[in-house]
Amino acid sequence: MQRFSGVLAPALTPFSDDLQPDAARFAGHCRWLTGQGVDLALFGTTSEANSLSVDEKESLLDALIGTGIDPDRIMAGTGCCALTDTERLTRHAVRSGCRGVLMLPPFYYRGAVDEGLYRYFAEIIERVADERLAIYLYHIPPVAGIGLSPALIERLAAAYPGAIAGIKDSSGDWDNTRRILELGIDDFRVFVGSENFLLDNMRHGGAGCISATVNVRPAPVLDLYRNWQGPGARDLQQSLIEWRKRVQQRPMIAALKAIAAHHAGDRAWRALRPPLSALAPEDERQLLEEMAASGLEMPGYREALQA
Amino acid sequence: MQRFSGVLAPALTPFSDDLQPDAARFAGHCRWLTGQGVDLALFGTTSEANSLSVDEKESLLDALIGTGIDPDRIMAGTGCCALTDTERLTRHAVRSGCRGVLMLPPFYYRGAVDEGLYRYFAEIIERVADERLAIYLYHIPPVAGIGLSPALIERLAAAYPGAIAGIKDSSGDWDNTRRILELGIDDFRVFVGSENFLLDNMRHGGAGCISATVNVRPAPVLDLYRNWQGPGARDLQQSLIEWRKRVQQRPMIAALKAIAAHHAGDRAWRALRPPLSALAPEDERQLLEEMAASGLEMPGYREALQA
Repeated sequence: MQRFSGVLAPALTPFSDDLQPDAARFAGHCRWLTGQGVDLALFGTTSEANSLSVDEKESLLDALIGTGIDPDRIMAGTGCCALTDTERLTRHAVRSGCRGVLMLPPFYYRGAVDEGLYRYFAEIIERVADERLAIYLYHIPPVAGIGLSPALIERLAAAYPGAIAGIKDSSGDWDNTRRILELGIDDFRVFVGSENFLLDNMRHGGAGCISATVNVRPAPVLDLYRNWQGPGARDLQQSLIEWRKRVQQRPMIAALKAIAAHHAGDRAWRALRPPLSALAPEDERQLLEEMAASGLEMPGYREALQA
Repeated sequence: MQRFSGVLAPALTPFSDDLQPDAARFAGHCRWLTGQGVDLALFGTTSEANSLSVDEKESLLDALIGTGIDPDRIMAGTGCCALTDTERLTRHAVRSGCRGVLMLPPFYYRGAVDEGLYRYFAEIIERVADERLAIYLYHIPPVAGIGLSPALIERLAAAYPGAIAGIKDSSGDWDNTRRILELGIDDFRVFVGSENFLLDNMRHGGAGCISATVNVRPAPVLDLYRNWQGPGARDLQQSLIEWRKRVQQRPMIAALKAIAAHHAGDRAWRALRPPLSALAPEDERQLLEEMAASGLEMPGYREALQA
């Protein structure tokens, strides 16, 4: 199977007023994103994936595919702390036809050594035992408190060249991404976790980016991906960096949900599951003013959510 | 319901050769521990709880109670990252008659603020809505990467005096335990997470300890708990500290499983789920020599496991 490249949205997960996952709103959001030309990375950090049970993740994925979203455009987050949870979610995603899975390391074990992490990923691959399995490792030490060293990545890719398809590097550290690229692993797809590094990534042989802001502003990121070799690439990259700064001043997930809620005309979209929470009203008001001043639009968003 | 006090063993979780939870060996281990006079804290860090799925934890608890272990002696770990997982496990434990639950905060969210954590615990309590619910907060920032501040503990206990029953403080920081004790919360049971602080804890009004080493050496810890006001308490405390040092030189869970395996005459007991792993053979040999030199015995252990 062709591996992912390009721009993926780590899709937000909407909740209803009683904090249940809202499959209909989720499908509408994902429909809008795919319509904008980006693929979907479900159940990552921006999706509040670790606030969802295994059952909830499976149900949301089933519901989404049931609405006609092509699973070939889905990279599904499946990495949990427990081997058996990761195994179950990964098998389900593969059998559902998802083109890839995004796999966190077992993050409760922040002191785990490379050998133990190797055995963990190897065990998952051996148990799922499906040649369609394509794992994108999820490296996000600032949040997870644990990461994947270049040596571990190299060892896994050497042992399982078919299953280890790439990585999302959300370290926020370009030097780390460059070290991974310099490993020179055959057909290994390196995604940066922020559009701020997209141009650098493409220039060094990377595959694209999977970035939170793509949830509300996919077009210019896709534009840079498609035209990174063009004359305007540097300016476009700089404008992406400037725009991101405005959102990043607030808690990212809450800010993105506030923006999505505003453009959907649907205040319920703002909810996060505890321990996370929606923006305070004053923060939200300021953010929306800044977004309006920046000219942000989400064309067709309300219609997509109501379809 | 009477709240816990005394010594609890954070029970190890045995796995079979294919890394499945082994309910029979688990029951044997727990039977030996209760026979030694200590109560059970299941599904904490020493239990590799975060390596188990929700289904696996429920099944193990059901199987254990099914063998005749009194749930009144069980504090069941139920804290997960996802609200709905914690809710489900907590409801199950309460309905199974467990005298208490041990609740980690949602540890993926290491940057969570007190307000968010308050809403998380409050939401669980409101959803479970059972007056039998007795929560022991699980404070273990060196492992979980997130903890519970004295201000948050005080706020929770004030809002839910019936449900917030106590805390296990595994910070390894006696000053923190003392600050919690000094909050003076009515009938709030403070357990230290290491026997090293047991005497200090009892002298300051604490409730006891829940410590990994109790899995293989419950008697002297129980002895100190029962005789902390006696003339030999200080010497006994010192001897506990000295003995613990020998085990603590190795990864704790692997060391305890090696010791249990040796006394059970059952090498399969040594297995840990990845990313954790059993001791290397040479480490294990040295540890067992040191344990023999220390005079460690586990009287009746083999018989309990075979019963």
